[in-house]
Amino acid sequence: MVSAHTDPDYSAAYVVIETDAEDGIKGCGITFTLGKGTEVVVCAVNALAHHVLNKDLKDIVGDFRGFYRQLTSDGQLRWIGPEKGVVHLATAAVLNAVWDLWAKLEGKPVWKLLVDMDPRTLVSCIDFRYITDVLTEEDALEILQKGQVGKKEREKQMLAQGYPAYTTSCAWLGYSDDTLKQLCAQALKDGWTRFKVKVGADLQDDVRRCQIIRDMIGPEKTLMMDANQRWDVPEAVEWMSELAKFKPLWIEEPTSPDDILGHATISKCHNRVIFKQLLQAKALQFLQIDSCRLGSVNENLSVLLMAKKFEIPVCPHAGGVGLCELVQHLIIFDYISVSASLENRMCEYVDHLHEHFKYPVMIQRASYMPPKDPGYSTEMKEESVKKHQYPDGEVWKKLLAAQEN
Amino acid sequence: MVSAHTDPDYSAAYVVIETDAEDGIKGCGITFTLGKGTEVVVCAVNALAHHVLNKDLKDIVGDFRGFYRQLTSDGQLRWIGPEKGVVHLATAAVLNAVWDLWAKLEGKPVWKLLVDMDPRTLVSCIDFRYITDVLTEEDALEILQKGQVGKKEREKQMLAQGYPAYTTSCAWLGYSDDTLKQLCAQALKDGWTRFKVKVGADLQDDVRRCQIIRDMIGPEKTLMMDANQRWDVPEAVEWMSELAKFKPLWIEEPTSPDDILGHATISKCHNRVIFKQLLQAKALQFLQIDSCRLGSVNENLSVLLMAKKFEIPVCPHAGGVGLCELVQHLIIFDYISVSASLENRMCEYVDHLHEHFKYPVMIQRASYMPPKDPGYSTEMKEESVKKHQYPDGEVWKKLLAAQEN
Repeated sequence: MVSAHTDPDYSAAYVVIETDAEDGIKGCGITFTLGKGTEVVVCAVNALAHHVLNKDLKDIVGDFRGFYRQLTSDGQLRWIGPEKGVVHLATAAVLNAVWDLWAKLEGKPVWKLLVDMDPRTLVSCIDFRYITDVLTEEDALEILQKGQVGKKEREKQMLAQGYPAYTTSCAWLGYSDDTLKQLCAQALKDGWTRFKVKVGADLQDDVRRCQIIRDMIGPEKTLMMDANQRWDVPEAVEWMSELAKFKPLWIEEPTSPDDILGHATISKCHNRVIFKQLLQAKALQFLQIDSCRLGSVNENLSVLLMAKKFEIPVCPHAGGVGLCELVQHLIIFDYISVSASLENRMCEYVDHLHEHFKYPVMIQRASYMPPKDPGYSTEMKEESVKKHQYPDGEVWKKLLAAQEN
Repeated sequence: MVSAHTDPDYSAAYVVIETDAEDGIKGCGITFTLGKGTEVVVCAVNALAHHVLNKDLKDIVGDFRGFYRQLTSDGQLRWIGPEKGVVHLATAAVLNAVWDLWAKLEGKPVWKLLVDMDPRTLVSCIDFRYITDVLTEEDALEILQKGQVGKKEREKQMLAQGYPAYTTSCAWLGYSDDTLKQLCAQALKDGWTRFKVKVGADLQDDVRRCQIIRDMIGPEKTLMMDANQRWDVPEAVEWMSELAKFKPLWIEEPTSPDDILGHATISKCHNRVIFKQLLQAKALQFLQIDSCRLGSVNENLSVLLMAKKFEIPVCPHAGGVGLCELVQHLIIFDYISVSASLENRMCEYVDHLHEHFKYPVMIQRASYMPPKDPGYSTEMKEESVKKHQYPDGEVWKKLLAAQEN
């Protein structure tokens, strides 16, 4: 169940669920890491596997809330989580595979499966444990029922125009100023209007890089910043005051993802309980979801609904391995059936590793075009899996041999 | 790096650090799980091992803050944490082994090593990342310097009387009323005056069990309750109102450990960032530390100091595998050098699995007596390790063979 990667910095646990049906349909699920650690996640996937093995898909999705609870509440495994870190990443990979399988059997992409699902069934996929103080089952139903109004038009609009995206590909830390300028010029040419720059290593360096990019894109286009948890709270305040002159729409992850009270703007979180409090504490102005970190569609549904209740725009985190492929389903569903708004909303895009996926994302005019193939767009090309499998794939054999020399 | 066991519900990742010195001294570290999941933790320990292998202990403890940062901030492994779940448990096991080794080389139990250490060196073991908004290095120094006053007397007092303990051994969920009564009678006979009962499965059942135990111990003795994260916030409020008549000193873990805003009383948390906010939010009236869940002595030091700053009593969580052995060092140090108070303070005790440890805890008159052997009391008996090693130990061979039949 392991698959690894061209770039040794990214790797992924790739879960494939096969069934005994004659249709040969497989459910593929993924969660990725930044390199080391995938072997730990795979180990956790194996610890969860018995929940899926020899089960009937109908029984799983027929009581999807119960199944989610089973995966996340195993009395013994809860200790090494709960619902966080390695165990929750493994949960995401397994559940992503289940959703891929289900959608393929229904002959629909996941976003469309969700859009067509009646509100009661949708709600039955969600575990409300620990969030009923801000979102009850009745609240969720009400939101989804309201979302039915105008749904058809919004679906048409998505199919025609896609969902607005922003690019993070230009401005990673470590790029030279020349590379930054070149990538930014190319992105402008390709029609991008929203850009994210990574900051937080060195303030003077950040100021220079932000100046370059703001000069190139002009005052009107959108600029976001991502500090990747580099700061303490006082440091974040100081640094952010310096960078404010470049008019960022947000500064992402200024500090520890666990620091609800210290949080300022936008955060990638590990579960719905953390998101709930960020909303309660009004510590978020934007909310990022992640289908490889949260418990798949199920847990993301609860977060989308809480965001709607608090009227906070959702702007998914993407990149990594296949995350763009996954989150596009969630955000397109969110627009059609939940938020019904595009104001201040956009989905991250990183042009990276899509070539390994059988149904890669399609970007047109800086927007995600709704996928049409059945499933969750999680299936990788056989060729890619074979080549990058750890430790026996061709790419790894070469890497490991090189290490030995 | 083995797993040990008597009860198949408990297992532990046991880390042994050997050196090339001729003294043959080994550092032993432990973190436990409730059964399944230890294989995942062991996998994470292996992913961290390179930080320790072929390193000089002097270099590690000479820049202990740097070493802690290295372990917890590995650019790639951070993704599968950070500082939570499996990766943080593995960090605890590795660091516990380092502290055991260091203390053995110094010929002192860990509590005494800490008590004798000058404040500057103590502070240099702590990573203040993400907590400087409530505790700076200067704050920590000031607290520790104040703690020098009266230290000698408090050390004498500890050696003579020990640190007050409470027992959780009587009232686990699932015990029959008869067993409960019998264990409680025995505990009273043994001199226990503080008792914890597990609650949260069934309200009527809880009411009956709490009534029995309160009747037996009388109105003066101390009763605590532990709900083990079973409730949502509204449910916790309702349930706790019902149980209030039994006058519990606290109700532990009413809801998700991630729910800072929903928290009421006492919580086992996974890192200093969560503890920081519980203190800031005044969501804690008591604070539980855990040396198998937090990043060993280093991270616990920061939590003890924050608790002192907010004047919140620390009452360590214990039980599991070897946790009593470990946390006694921390709480005895806390009394002598930090809190200087026993008011509303006590350390959990569970009479369970001590027979596997080479230097088991010693309880006298319901108090933890300060350990005198060098080290962190983490070393297991060779015999026990051999017998319970997974999957080749005798105990496991029998269990696995039984499963196959």
